[in-house]
Amino acid sequence: MAITITAFENPPDGGRGLVRDMRVRWALEEAGLDYQVRLVSFAATKEPAHLALQPFGQIPTYQDGDLVLFESGAIVLHIARRAPCLLPEGEAAQARAVMWMFAALNSVEPPISELGSARLLEAGESWSAARLPLVAARARNRVAQLARWLGENEWLEGAFSAGDLMMVSVLIRLRLSGILDEFPNLAAYVARGEARPAYRRAFAAQLAVYNARPEVS
Amino acid sequence: MAITITAFENPPDGGRGLVRDMRVRWALEEAGLDYQVRLVSFAATKEPAHLALQPFGQIPTYQDGDLVLFESGAIVLHIARRAPCLLPEGEAAQARAVMWMFAALNSVEPPISELGSARLLEAGESWSAARLPLVAARARNRVAQLARWLGENEWLEGAFSAGDLMMVSVLIRLRLSGILDEFPNLAAYVARGEARPAYRRAFAAQLAVYNARPEVS
Repeated sequence: MAITITAFENPPDGGRGLVRDMRVRWALEEAGLDYQVRLVSFAATKEPAHLALQPFGQIPTYQDGDLVLFESGAIVLHIARRAPCLLPEGEAAQARAVMWMFAALNSVEPPISELGSARLLEAGESWSAARLPLVAARARNRVAQLARWLGENEWLEGAFSAGDLMMVSVLIRLRLSGILDEFPNLAAYVARGEARPAYRRAFAAQLAVYNARPEVS
Repeated sequence: MAITITAFENPPDGGRGLVRDMRVRWALEEAGLDYQVRLVSFAATKEPAHLALQPFGQIPTYQDGDLVLFESGAIVLHIARRAPCLLPEGEAAQARAVMWMFAALNSVEPPISELGSARLLEAGESWSAARLPLVAARARNRVAQLARWLGENEWLEGAFSAGDLMMVSVLIRLRLSGILDEFPNLAAYVARGEARPAYRRAFAAQLAVYNARPEVS
C-alpha cells in the first residue's frame, strides 16, 4: 500500500521549503520510503472532505492503508520508528531523540512562529513597530539557549536523528529574520542538515510543485 | 531506581495545576509509577547545574537512573510507553494517540500560550488593548476546530490516552480567559479529565507544594 501525503498545490512560501510537508518529505527520503503527493488548494483545506482528515485545516496529512495521521511531528515520529537512521537503538537513546522533536515543536518553534506572525501577519497593525523588538528578543533568547547547548557538536545527541530533522526544519524558519546568522554554530548546524542528500531530494520535490503551480489569473 | 522529577518550590500559578510538572505527575499517577520530586527555585533553573539538564531553564525534568529527559511531551510519551492505560495496543492506534499529543503541543497550545502572554506579560504595553481581540480570536478559532472534531465523544479517539492527557492539560490553560466555557463540549471534556482519580492525586500533590512554599520576605 502506497504512502500518500498532502501538500499545497500553490505553496505559499515560494518553494523555499518552509511548509510543513517538507519535514515529512525529508523523513520519508531519509527512511527510503516511496510516497505519493496529493496536492490540495488552500481553499480545499478548509472544506469538509479535508477537515474530516485534518480538523485544523492544515497540511500535511499522511495516509498509509487505513492509517491517517496529521501533525508533522507525529508523522515524522511514525516514519522514524521504521527507520534506524532516524531513531537510534536503545530505549534511552530513542527517548532522547524524541525529546528533541518535542523541544523543536513546543519550545523552539512557538517563539519563531510568533516572530513570523509579528513580521508578516501583523505588519500593518498599529503596534507592529513598537512590539517587534520584544518578539524578536523572545525568539533570540530561546535560540541562544539552544546554541549554547549545541556548542561545536555536529548534531544534538551523537548521530543525526529525527530530533535534528525537526530542529533544523524549525530553525530554517528563522533565517529570513536574520537571527539565525547571529549564531554561527546554529547556522552551520542548519547547513549540515540542508546538505544531506535526503534533504536535497525533498527540497527539490517541493520546489518542483511550486514551479508547476497553476497560474493564478 | 527511583524516578525523580523537578518542580518549582514556589509554583507561580498558585497551585492551580497550570505548571508543566502537572502533566508529568498526572501521567505517572495514571501509570501507577512511584516518583520523587526535587523542588527548585525559579532562580536555580537559570543556573548552570539545571541548565546542564535542561538547556531552556525550564521544569520539569525527569531522571530515571542514567536517563535524563526534559520537555513534558517527551516525558509523558516515555511514561506512556510503559503504561497500557495511556497508549492503546496496536501500532496504528498508538500513532493516533501520539498524534493528539503533538496536536496539543504544536497546534493547540501555541495560540493559547500567545493569549496568555498577551493577557499577562504584555498587559502593560501600549498595544495591549488593541491587540488582545486578535490574539483571542486566534485561540478561539483553533479551539473551535477542536470542539467540532470532538463533538459529543468522550475522548479524542475511543478510550482515554496520553493524547487526551496532554490536550486536557493544554485546554485548562484557557479557562481563565473565559474561552473554554464558550465550548460546552470541550469544557465537559476537560472536566472529565479533571475527574480522573490520577488527575486528582497529581493535582493534590502539586497543590501541597504550593501550600508548603517558603515564605517570601
